[in-house]
Amino acid sequence: MVETAVDECELCESPGGEVVWENALCRVVMAEELNYPGFCRVILNSHHREMTDLSFSDRAQLMTVVFAVECALRRLYKPDKINLASLGNLTPHVHWHVIPRWRDDPHFPNSIWAAPQRIDSPLRRSVDGRLLGEQIICAMRKTLA
Amino acid sequence: MVETAVDECELCESPGGEVVWENALCRVVMAEELNYPGFCRVILNSHHREMTDLSFSDRAQLMTVVFAVECALRRLYKPDKINLASLGNLTPHVHWHVIPRWRDDPHFPNSIWAAPQRIDSPLRRSVDGRLLGEQIICAMRKTLA
Repeated sequence: MVETAVDECELCESPGGEVVWENALCRVVMAEELNYPGFCRVILNSHHREMTDLSFSDRAQLMTVVFAVECALRRLYKPDKINLASLGNLTPHVHWHVIPRWRDDPHFPNSIWAAPQRIDSPLRRSVDGRLLGEQIICAMRKTLA
Repeated sequence: MVETAVDECELCESPGGEVVWENALCRVVMAEELNYPGFCRVILNSHHREMTDLSFSDRAQLMTVVFAVECALRRLYKPDKINLASLGNLTPHVHWHVIPRWRDDPHFPNSIWAAPQRIDSPLRRSVDGRLLGEQIICAMRKTLA
């Protein structure tokens, strides 16, 4: 998929979800977690393990995309909180989780990787990938303005 | 503590740990989690909820500090992985967790907020805060070079 692809890395071998925005450096995919509408991942196209393995310019560009996704999700979903994380313990290929959170979501106030706190969370609708892509473009334009 | 301090915000009311580096925008503190030597937090000095509540310049500056801490921790601890996260569900005041991870640490490969995976993890020594501060300064200098 990319020049620096690594065998048996699932993010080198597949997009990792429905791509809603992409450029030469990275792609934004919808995570499609039922309880977490809007949950996106910003995935580096090339295979690198840590943010500090990237050039200063690529780090900055990637974070600009992460924050554009945060802007788009805040505008579309109006969540109570946004969670950002780059973990990669299982898949050591740089990718960012951008997760809208609500006070009544299954894990709040804990991280989504902790034990659930409740089972009666309301189901919220996910917006269409195309609309999300448009909002990311809109947020990116403000960055460049 | 800061001009924009908010009542009952623990990160407005206290430093949040031993400060090893700071500037006008933020401070780096040692988290002092026994099982996670090197675990640091980069805490914004002013009270803001989300990264996208900050100016573009402050976002970029804050991430430069986060990545300088990542560099310093990689150099000092040589961990198997670095985890970065800005969650703030309980304390909605922007702060980043910068966490060195090892394959045999208590939660690996899960996040440190998930259920533990093992109880026989080796105890690793934490380095002195002054040494960590020096390495952060060293990493910041490379950013500015």
